[in-house]
Amino acid sequence: MRPPAQNAELALLLEVAGTPKPGNVDRRRDLEELRFEHFLAGAVGARDGLEMAADGASVGAAFERAVGGMAAQGGDNTQFGALLLLVPLVRAARNELSQPVVESVVEGTTVADAAAFYRAFEHVDVFVSDPPAEMEPLDVRRGSDAVPVLEERGLTLFDVLDRSVPGDDVAREWSHGFERSFLAAQRLADASGTPSERTASVFLSLLADRPDTLVVKRHGEVTAREVTDRAAELHERDALETDPDSVKAFADELVGRGVNPGTTADVTAAGLFIALERECLEI
Amino acid sequence: MRPPAQNAELALLLEVAGTPKPGNVDRRRDLEELRFEHFLAGAVGARDGLEMAADGASVGAAFERAVGGMAAQGGDNTQFGALLLLVPLVRAARNELSQPVVESVVEGTTVADAAAFYRAFEHVDVFVSDPPAEMEPLDVRRGSDAVPVLEERGLTLFDVLDRSVPGDDVAREWSHGFERSFLAAQRLADASGTPSERTASVFLSLLADRPDTLVVKRHGEVTAREVTDRAAELHERDALETDPDSVKAFADELVGRGVNPGTTADVTAAGLFIALERECLEI
Repeated sequence: MRPPAQNAELALLLEVAGTPKPGNVDRRRDLEELRFEHFLAGAVGARDGLEMAADGASVGAAFERAVGGMAAQGGDNTQFGALLLLVPLVRAARNELSQPVVESVVEGTTVADAAAFYRAFEHVDVFVSDPPAEMEPLDVRRGSDAVPVLEERGLTLFDVLDRSVPGDDVAREWSHGFERSFLAAQRLADASGTPSERTASVFLSLLADRPDTLVVKRHGEVTAREVTDRAAELHERDALETDPDSVKAFADELVGRGVNPGTTADVTAAGLFIALERECLEI
Repeated sequence: MRPPAQNAELALLLEVAGTPKPGNVDRRRDLEELRFEHFLAGAVGARDGLEMAADGASVGAAFERAVGGMAAQGGDNTQFGALLLLVPLVRAARNELSQPVVESVVEGTTVADAAAFYRAFEHVDVFVSDPPAEMEPLDVRRGSDAVPVLEERGLTLFDVLDRSVPGDDVAREWSHGFERSFLAAQRLADASGTPSERTASVFLSLLADRPDTLVVKRHGEVTAREVTDRAAELHERDALETDPDSVKAFADELVGRGVNPGTTADVTAAGLFIALERECLEI
């Protein structure tokens, strides 16, 4: 059995290898400024932070280290959201990888974890929306400058992420017991085909479930809803199996429009980690 | 600057991602029993052994650990030869990554390193030829059973590999100052295009230089020479740029015939590591 930090790194690699993943970098697709090898280097760089989580470090410290290592490549942000899911999952796997345990991990985060989370934004350019007025002093783009306000208000990392829901489906996993991550793992277990094919299938099913929140932030609700409806139509008729060309056309179109469903990829990576840990996906 | 163990793992990943690499698994190619994700998991698993080498462990111990981790996936041997090059290179990078330093690393190996090398064969099914009669008690397929004979004859790991030349171009790197690995790095630096394109170009150039010794072992000298001549013809007319379909046809044909130039891939991975360390290939 592969140790948790290795499974987490492998989950990042399997996620980006899965193809086709409409709109995103995959084994057969580079974007103009963001290429496959940036994701490979991002996964390699994240490993030390994932090892810290496996060794029992606090979620914030492990996340900050993972992001710092991930960002040491020329593609900038490749796996920030995925790491925000993987770090608490790896931490939970020290005891037991279940929804209640990972809930207790995230609910146990502290103000210091929140401060580390803010510092992580200094390593990398993450796409975020403007916060509501009362949260403006806690705009993540302030990085460590926001730490005194965090401390003054006594906000833990769980509190910070809880305030980002709705609108951010990575944060939503934190406050909803990682339900979609565990669902993704179950779907990966139930799917057939190679790991790459299963990953593509589960990515499409997740995209069909809910509008991708990164797409909402960048392109608005209407576009995000349209993308989800198209994904649902393809998923319902099992197009990856029966009509792969239509999925490929959808993928080409999203790339052409600059629409990349990054949140869905993050949840897919979390699901891959859980499936690897449970050995219902074997490599 | 990425630390050496990370660069070594990334070199393994970039090697398998480079496409097209005629006859081998690559970003766009799976073989029937050996898939891309086996190489991803192999690289992830090798990391701990590579970290040991970076921390100053002996070459044999680090190699045995790297191979044990690499082999923990369903594709069996993915990167044995590449690790036999990367481990001494990572060890050399502690001081200086140059040909004289890596020569002194391999010449300084001991009988204990040789014993660890033999034990490494117990983790994985490596394709090897029958040894000459006087080396029969030291057939690597004996694994640790051969250790008493090694000790009796006082053979170091350098001695063991030196006796495998000619016939094994990974072993040849050990006794020839890693000349092709450093040459590959220089070619990677001089090449143009994305890392994946450079990797494909350098792989083809190395295949054009010398018959691949894994192909010799599996298919004989005539086939290996023919493959090299074909690669040379494609390389000379810059077919990757000017006539990519002909390279693709060559790749399809080799896969159809079960010809995979694995030694050339091993040297490519070593070159990638050196190029990453020297920052003449940036990701």
